[in-house]
Amino acid sequence: MPRRYNYFPCRFTARYPFVRKLMRLFQEHNYPGKLIVVEGVDGSGKSTQLSLLRNWLESRGHSVIFTEWNSSKLISKTIKQAKRSNSLIPVTFSILHATDFADRLENIIIPALKAGLIVLADRYCFTAFARDVARGVDKDWVRNLYGFAIRPNGAFYFQVPVEVSLQRIANSRLPGFYEAGMDVGLSPDPKESYQMFQSIIINEYDKMISEFGFHSMPATRPIHEQQMLFREQAAKVLGI
Amino acid sequence: MPRRYNYFPCRFTARYPFVRKLMRLFQEHNYPGKLIVVEGVDGSGKSTQLSLLRNWLESRGHSVIFTEWNSSKLISKTIKQAKRSNSLIPVTFSILHATDFADRLENIIIPALKAGLIVLADRYCFTAFARDVARGVDKDWVRNLYGFAIRPNGAFYFQVPVEVSLQRIANSRLPGFYEAGMDVGLSPDPKESYQMFQSIIINEYDKMISEFGFHSMPATRPIHEQQMLFREQAAKVLGI
Repeated sequence: MPRRYNYFPCRFTARYPFVRKLMRLFQEHNYPGKLIVVEGVDGSGKSTQLSLLRNWLESRGHSVIFTEWNSSKLISKTIKQAKRSNSLIPVTFSILHATDFADRLENIIIPALKAGLIVLADRYCFTAFARDVARGVDKDWVRNLYGFAIRPNGAFYFQVPVEVSLQRIANSRLPGFYEAGMDVGLSPDPKESYQMFQSIIINEYDKMISEFGFHSMPATRPIHEQQMLFREQAAKVLGI
Repeated sequence: MPRRYNYFPCRFTARYPFVRKLMRLFQEHNYPGKLIVVEGVDGSGKSTQLSLLRNWLESRGHSVIFTEWNSSKLISKTIKQAKRSNSLIPVTFSILHATDFADRLENIIIPALKAGLIVLADRYCFTAFARDVARGVDKDWVRNLYGFAIRPNGAFYFQVPVEVSLQRIANSRLPGFYEAGMDVGLSPDPKESYQMFQSIIINEYDKMISEFGFHSMPATRPIHEQQMLFREQAAKVLGI
């Protein structure tokens, strides 16, 4: 990581020793647990893969905690209400999700890592880096916003072409207003807007492979094959 | 303002012309209205002074909109609920207030400025810059967090020594848990903690006088005298 993520001047931590634990600056953690996150667009199969990995880990006797994007008790209801009105601007949208993230980080992820558990996160701050930037929010601003996040032990990116993502989603439901990026005004047609919006997101994700050292997963391959690869790489990350 | 607040790369605004209005980078606005904000610690008398100014402006036929810290429909209830549990960490606390701010900026402040009204804000992003930093949140991080804010036409800082602030508050009520900075762990005694916490906040405010060009108000002087000065300086800012 470039040094610019180190937002904590030493004079401050020296003066207030308590702050060290408050902002983590995308630092590596020293907790006994491990954090594995999956990323990718909707329909990339990442949730299915993570769920299979969870079962596998549990069947082997590991203690696993699962957490997903936009699920904190504190704020997820507010986000859902706000989305319903279709009137959120990108900055508010972005900050709302960061609040959800901060709350889950402090109340779920960190305590579980301290307790030595394996934490599996369905989406992490990279989701914001991809989506919010696709929404027109500044790249540096949103990276700074999540500067308090800790670096995961492994970040797995499920890479699919936009056509595949669109087809997988279309088979089950119509994309939502924000999911399709309708607030961004790319196209009045939800399907076309979704395709354009997801293309920008995929583009942002692709650029993050080297920036954050993602494990790139071939998400168009058969489920079982992907899972074998995922288990192999996750086992290495977990040291099991 | 230093250039580092300019978080918007041109290649982006060129590609997505709609983003220009989404992030404002603490830029000066070109709306026909005017934005006046008051800042200062609790008990500095800023709300009283702003209220008197409002009456005066209205009596002179000006259309005025008033907005205060932590009052957005979207999020203020969540903030109140979260505070009740006394378990918020500074980063979550900080982001929650930024959400409130973003929502009010977009739904109250900007529309009113567009309509040519005078907007009076009881606390602005500088409150976060003072309080959150006193809480141990990184100074640059929180300034970046509010990078979408627009620069007010006039920012009036009501400067009082901490003893005066403490005495004024003590006359009416005990300071709240977060107001006294009890979450920061400076002292187990609420009164002592409040005094220590407010001192740090005042120190942060004082440093911002030159950083943001505050109009410094002598808040220990008689109310009427202050108000005369406030009106005079506000009138200049408003060009009336």
